[in-house]
Amino acid sequence: MGLRDLSAALHEGLITPTRAVEAVLQRIEETEPSINAWVHVDAEGALATARRLEESADPRGPLWGVPVAVKDLIDVAGMPTRCGSSLRDDTPAPRDAECVRLLREAGAVVIGKTVTTEFGYFKPGPTRNPANLAHTPGGSSSGSAAAVAADVVPLALGTQTAGSLTRPAAFCCAAGFVTPTGTFSLEGVTGLSHSLDTLGFLAPHVADLHLVWDILTHQPAKVLQAGTDEPVRILLWNGSGLGDVSPAMDAAVGFAADTLIAGGAAVNDWQQHDLIQQLCEAHADVMAYEAAEERAAELERTSELSPPLVELLTTGQRCTPEEYAAAQQTIASLRQEVLSLLATHDAVLGPAALGAAPAGIEATGSPVLSRPWQALGFAAITIPGLRDEFGMPLGIQLIGIPGQEERLFTIAEQVEETIAARTPTFPTARYKPCPQHT
Amino acid sequence: MGLRDLSAALHEGLITPTRAVEAVLQRIEETEPSINAWVHVDAEGALATARRLEESADPRGPLWGVPVAVKDLIDVAGMPTRCGSSLRDDTPAPRDAECVRLLREAGAVVIGKTVTTEFGYFKPGPTRNPANLAHTPGGSSSGSAAAVAADVVPLALGTQTAGSLTRPAAFCCAAGFVTPTGTFSLEGVTGLSHSLDTLGFLAPHVADLHLVWDILTHQPAKVLQAGTDEPVRILLWNGSGLGDVSPAMDAAVGFAADTLIAGGAAVNDWQQHDLIQQLCEAHADVMAYEAAEERAAELERTSELSPPLVELLTTGQRCTPEEYAAAQQTIASLRQEVLSLLATHDAVLGPAALGAAPAGIEATGSPVLSRPWQALGFAAITIPGLRDEFGMPLGIQLIGIPGQEERLFTIAEQVEETIAARTPTFPTARYKPCPQHT
Repeated sequence: MGLRDLSAALHEGLITPTRAVEAVLQRIEETEPSINAWVHVDAEGALATARRLEESADPRGPLWGVPVAVKDLIDVAGMPTRCGSSLRDDTPAPRDAECVRLLREAGAVVIGKTVTTEFGYFKPGPTRNPANLAHTPGGSSSGSAAAVAADVVPLALGTQTAGSLTRPAAFCCAAGFVTPTGTFSLEGVTGLSHSLDTLGFLAPHVADLHLVWDILTHQPAKVLQAGTDEPVRILLWNGSGLGDVSPAMDAAVGFAADTLIAGGAAVNDWQQHDLIQQLCEAHADVMAYEAAEERAAELERTSELSPPLVELLTTGQRCTPEEYAAAQQTIASLRQEVLSLLATHDAVLGPAALGAAPAGIEATGSPVLSRPWQALGFAAITIPGLRDEFGMPLGIQLIGIPGQEERLFTIAEQVEETIAARTPTFPTARYKPCPQHT
Repeated sequence: MGLRDLSAALHEGLITPTRAVEAVLQRIEETEPSINAWVHVDAEGALATARRLEESADPRGPLWGVPVAVKDLIDVAGMPTRCGSSLRDDTPAPRDAECVRLLREAGAVVIGKTVTTEFGYFKPGPTRNPANLAHTPGGSSSGSAAAVAADVVPLALGTQTAGSLTRPAAFCCAAGFVTPTGTFSLEGVTGLSHSLDTLGFLAPHVADLHLVWDILTHQPAKVLQAGTDEPVRILLWNGSGLGDVSPAMDAAVGFAADTLIAGGAAVNDWQQHDLIQQLCEAHADVMAYEAAEERAAELERTSELSPPLVELLTTGQRCTPEEYAAAQQTIASLRQEVLSLLATHDAVLGPAALGAAPAGIEATGSPVLSRPWQALGFAAITIPGLRDEFGMPLGIQLIGIPGQEERLFTIAEQVEETIAARTPTFPTARYKPCPQHT
């Protein structure tokens, strides 16, 4: 059941918060032995919270009784934040991260903490992909994506610095929303790069994410006075130059573009591949420089860090402030170009990852297709529902300018609905909807 | 007539685009000798555009026939961009800035270019404040604010790096909207500081700005599916520690807060004055460093620059990349704190300037009350309508997190409406509505 439906059922009294939490705990028991999505489950605490919600006379928040999973880079009061690293101990966080507090204020019930890669970088945890246990779930929001995709929780918190939310959402078959930079506090979140880190959400459907966004940004519950029913205008980006996008992924993106065209959208090809490569390079510079600052304390204990993280941090240490300032300047200047391109388009549609989740759980796949958009601080929605011929999920992403989230969600939901409605009759076996989306 | 009403009248055929342009041209003739808001008026071009719109069979854009003024830092094809500096010549810009193109695409008619201070910094142009010709209109969007406040145009483009839009809007009695960083392309806009520069709009009423925002961000014309009618929660910020806020301005902000409380809002005092001062200092460092980069060519001809601009640029040259990176880091870290504070509040309400427009046109007043919010890249709405006992406008501002613009506009419109409705019966002579707002 998606978040939207569950939330409605809770509000209508068709299900109680306690029953919702019990269902999650039962599903954890069923799935955890194979998926390993959680590092900490607070069954008693969650049940107690659910009971308190039921007994309280306070007004019910819009997420009243909704169970939620929290990535283990994000503080939850009373639970340790281990960050996927042996450098962190079991000391419980003194208070909730701001984003957790917001969800609790809306009535959500925290179930526990989900697996992250080491400090949100590459070293994976033990999580496996629910779509195929021999494949990586992606990273760094590995546990959150797997828990949502395995139908354990209807909502999970994640974060993204490079491709840490979009990629696992795509690999596992979850909907993901990377919030635009600076729209939510990251207080209580262990970061990697202060100008690139953002908060995000994972849920079964795009419409679920839309609901969460509207709730947390306090969208007024009234008819918008202005607005347009203009035809949708899409820039179709194939990921050229950043890596080898698989033929199945190419076809998935093409299918999504075709559904938009069939719905009356104008679709133009993205031509500026050089610009995207420059954004990627600048992203890598900024990330390394800022990570070396943010994780300076950890760098003194390199023996307890993975080699990729040590390499990132030492690269960052070697980066001069001049190089850092130049990278930021490059991003700022390229942002203007992209904003211009998007002034005549509603969104960029492209692959969310190079292909389906690679086999093996020793590596989490490449975040490269998120780097340019993350450098720009844009919103990114991962749309689930398509699969390759082996049944592995193929996530596509829709990227938009900050301030245009409503429009972006509207388009993404249109794509999602068309995928759900049309795919069963799609003439080749290449596209199959995810089981939890039919 | 406000933009909203004019646009409706145009769509209903009660007035033609030609007649709307003629009315603006006539009003320019009436006001320009005293106000000096314009550096370039393209009467013939505007009339020709209006006629073309009338004769065209193309679908009519949402701003069809609306006359608009453009700050002279922003390129308009065929008109010079003088930037308030003798260093720029009369070479016409080869094409429209992206924001101008967007407005034209929506059907707006460009009337001409309005006075800016030198490169958007402090050296004023010849514009006078329509509320009192002996007073500054503020800067740097001086001409745009004066032209709107004098009822010449229903919409003007401006920009802000420190307080360049909020302050003139407040001084002249116009509604102003500073868009969140990164929501519009600044291509074709002469900037001062790439990470601080933003685009903004000026119009008679907040509701007009809301319309423009919804049009340019392509808000879907449908009922939002989620949303809340939660009580409004405001952080009341008195500007402490940044300068001497005048008693009249204090009273104006207090009046606005009282109207919100009367409407059911919860209002808490802003306590974190140190944080705001740190943001101001970091803003100044970032602005100087980036301005020295952006205006490096001009700095080679110091004799043609004003002393304040030379000082800014040489300060920026002395700023090291380390200091710059540290200032950016400070802003990023303080942003988290402010986002946390605002997670339980909808907006910050405070003075838009230290007081009413100072006497004299040799200086444009202080931008200090905008610096902290501009550093954060937040949205800021200047609400007009209050005046001091001498009849001078007192602008107040409402500041919000990116992504929550609909909520911010809703609250600002509520304040604006209450000011318009209640002020005539307000028991002291301290508050008088602006003539154009009654």
